Amino acid sequence: MNYGIVLKVLGNLLLFEAVALLLPLAVGIYYKESSVLAFMYTILILIVLGGMMRKFPSSSKQIKAREGLSIVAGGWIFVSFFGALPFVLDGSIPSMVDAFFETVSGLTTTGATIINDIEVLPRSILFWRSFTHWLGGMGILVLTLAVLPALGVGGFQIFKAESPGPVSDKLVPRMRNTATILYTAYLGITILEMILLLAGGLTLYESALHTFGTVGTGGFSTYNSSIGAYESSYVVMVIAIFMIASGVNFSLYYELYKKNFKEIYKNSELKLYLSIIAISVLLITLNLYGNVYDNIFETFKQAFFQVGSFITTTGYTTTNYEEWPGFSQSILFFLMFAGGSAGSTGGSIKIIRLLILLKLVIREISKILHPRAVIPIRINGKMISADVIAGVSSFFFLYLLLLMVGSLLISLEGIGLVSSISSVAATLGNIGPGFGFVGPTQTYSDFSVASKMLLSLMMLFGRLELYTIFILLMPAFWKERI
Amino acid sequence: MNYGIVLKVLGNLLLFEAVALLLPLAVGIYYKESSVLAFMYTILILIVLGGMMRKFPSSSKQIKAREGLSIVAGGWIFVSFFGALPFVLDGSIPSMVDAFFETVSGLTTTGATIINDIEVLPRSILFWRSFTHWLGGMGILVLTLAVLPALGVGGFQIFKAESPGPVSDKLVPRMRNTATILYTAYLGITILEMILLLAGGLTLYESALHTFGTVGTGGFSTYNSSIGAYESSYVVMVIAIFMIASGVNFSLYYELYKKNFKEIYKNSELKLYLSIIAISVLLITLNLYGNVYDNIFETFKQAFFQVGSFITTTGYTTTNYEEWPGFSQSILFFLMFAGGSAGSTGGSIKIIRLLILLKLVIREISKILHPRAVIPIRINGKMISADVIAGVSSFFFLYLLLLMVGSLLISLEGIGLVSSISSVAATLGNIGPGFGFVGPTQTYSDFSVASKMLLSLMMLFGRLELYTIFILLMPAFWKERI
Repeated sequence: MNYGIVLKVLGNLLLFEAVALLLPLAVGIYYKESSVLAFMYTILILIVLGGMMRKFPSSSKQIKAREGLSIVAGGWIFVSFFGALPFVLDGSIPSMVDAFFETVSGLTTTGATIINDIEVLPRSILFWRSFTHWLGGMGILVLTLAVLPALGVGGFQIFKAESPGPVSDKLVPRMRNTATILYTAYLGITILEMILLLAGGLTLYESALHTFGTVGTGGFSTYNSSIGAYESSYVVMVIAIFMIASGVNFSLYYELYKKNFKEIYKNSELKLYLSIIAISVLLITLNLYGNVYDNIFETFKQAFFQVGSFITTTGYTTTNYEEWPGFSQSILFFLMFAGGSAGSTGGSIKIIRLLILLKLVIREISKILHPRAVIPIRINGKMISADVIAGVSSFFFLYLLLLMVGSLLISLEGIGLVSSISSVAATLGNIGPGFGFVGPTQTYSDFSVASKMLLSLMMLFGRLELYTIFILLMPAFWKERI
Repeated sequence: MNYGIVLKVLGNLLLFEAVALLLPLAVGIYYKESSVLAFMYTILILIVLGGMMRKFPSSSKQIKAREGLSIVAGGWIFVSFFGALPFVLDGSIPSMVDAFFETVSGLTTTGATIINDIEVLPRSILFWRSFTHWLGGMGILVLTLAVLPALGVGGFQIFKAESPGPVSDKLVPRMRNTATILYTAYLGITILEMILLLAGGLTLYESALHTFGTVGTGGFSTYNSSIGAYESSYVVMVIAIFMIASGVNFSLYYELYKKNFKEIYKNSELKLYLSIIAISVLLITLNLYGNVYDNIFETFKQAFFQVGSFITTTGYTTTNYEEWPGFSQSILFFLMFAGGSAGSTGGSIKIIRLLILLKLVIREISKILHPRAVIPIRINGKMISADVIAGVSSFFFLYLLLLMVGSLLISLEGIGLVSSISSVAATLGNIGPGFGFVGPTQTYSDFSVASKMLLSLMMLFGRLELYTIFILLMPAFWKERI
């Protein structure tokens, strides 16, 4: 492996993080908070270290699969580690393990927290905490659309094969172009939501932080009761709609801009995504109306918000859904395994994979009735290769295998099956809250250090589409020569 | 569809059931029980109806996919319905829905019961209840090895591709031969276990009934506390070993008979099956020793028995495993999704499918490091085609999809997530007991009529490898012409 080039790129990434930290620093200065020092020290460390790493000699400038994967995985771990420093230096989160968990949770747009009382923390610290969602969301878009497919990682071919939008085949030439389009969409949605939340009476600070949590499908709030702190139905509905909008393939916004309505209309991933939302909202509304809530709009609002929050893997809450009947709770539980669309900031298994697997089942049934027929699987009119089907299937299996192994290890905490499974599902799927021990009124603070490290790893596994992290844990990756 | 031939075959099946009922009738006469009348009436009904159906005119003798599927699915439903009559006529199980549930549970070798006090029922009734396991197990072997692959149903190609033993490609010519070999192995194992249990001091009656429950991987007992009623470690270990032996591909016993030890040694499904058992027993033993049990042999025995019971989908219990620590419980929970080997009487997903999916994941990782390499997947040295991989993947996805839909519907009973999911997992996987509401000290008697029907359907889904039942529920099956 060419370590020189890896260190160089990681050094640049740390310098970028130093620049990003100027924003919370500015917030700290504006509010005259003592946390200013913590940000300044961190920025200093990043500049020194990043500057040194950049100067590392490298034998060649070529980035192959091995270097690329090391950069991606190493980048997320490095940025998480140094991003945790302000929490520790300021004393907001005294334990480094806790601070690392919180930063990984932020950057992977999970939104699982170990902080029991958010509301007492300095504003600049909470700003950084939420800002990691926004930065992470941006990072994911580039990874999914440009970097990882070029490295040929696992299930990413599906995006290459399926995206109706601008997708690159080679890393260098098209990446800038793709990234520009996506950043524009991401920025546009961010600004639009901020304006709408400001119009709803929120302060600039609260609008910004909740927008970061929404468009990154993260879920960090400034209140212990999450979005439940807002009585305004307008605010709740704006956040719900923007959560769902952030779970849509971002390249469809490019089509919207180009007025290619046909491309959007015939997109089958979008259809399935919206259908799952519509059916789930309908069933939960029917289950809750006259039972938990008497007002039909209130019922719909709660169902709509919670479904949007779970399917997009955001994890914001407006109510303690564990007080809902079992049927509604079960729907939310199973939505943890859906996730957003490919090319969105949402995590989990993702709609496109479920769509391909669903078409596989339908084909299998047709084959029984017509044994001699050769039936190709098409998505948006394009044929899906056997390679992509195998990639999707193995992703699905590996996802559930990791869920099982993770749940077994977490069950050593003695918290019961639902809590064990849902804590791993909520972190691997980058959701945040789950059920039981990690329910909407709980935090992850009571887990042991070992479990917190395991769940941090699960968040990274989920965010980097399993294989990126998996391959780094294999001895063959370090030994073999490509 | 050629209804004539379907009715003819079903008629023969009912006459066969009448013959099978002579055995419990004899038991009733021997013990001078009043249930004798219930068996006589049922036999009479079966002879009249079966005789009439046999005489139905049919245009041709050809059995195509559509007729074959109708016979398989219709056969299981008909035999279950009429097999339930003795329970109702005798008054042992007054409700027809309950009796149907119990008979489906018996024939599908599930072992889920709605009877709260087994010990008060007549011996002949309990004999019939356990005998359905043995009949069902026999039926499954023929279905898996001969009938279903010939009909081209779903995941069954894997058996055709994988079995190192005698597997038929065409229904008529080789079926008798295959069936003879399997029945011989099945009978041999049955007789061997009965002798060993008799040697352990059990009566002929108890030996027979528990052997039926073991070799069919069913799980019906004559005691409310299942195998926990026996204090003898010998009896517990004999049953445990025979459960595990019944989860092995039966064609391997043919290889054993032929002294082809090499075939057995290199069988990768067997290796994975035994590895999962060994690891699970080790982990549970470590978790329970000095904690729940003080004696190391007692700890091992309980772990070994419960692991064997869950992985083979038998469902016998020796202890209330819900009092075990969460870690051990979680292992048992996840074993519900393993199942026996292909070509065994065990249910659930089955080891061969997990093996193929595991190899798919390993290939995907190799592909990242060697993007240009074409890596075939081999099982026992034979290459697995893309078609089989797609079949296995779609089976795995459909299995979890049915688990989800089933659990959502059951959650309307208001019994919580673990109980909802485990009741569906325990019926779909043909296991029997699960966790919570369907735990080892509970029965299925408190479910609503609708849920009992749904869970009966789940047992049939699982037993007939999903697609056989699924396709019958599709309008296209009835409308279209092949």
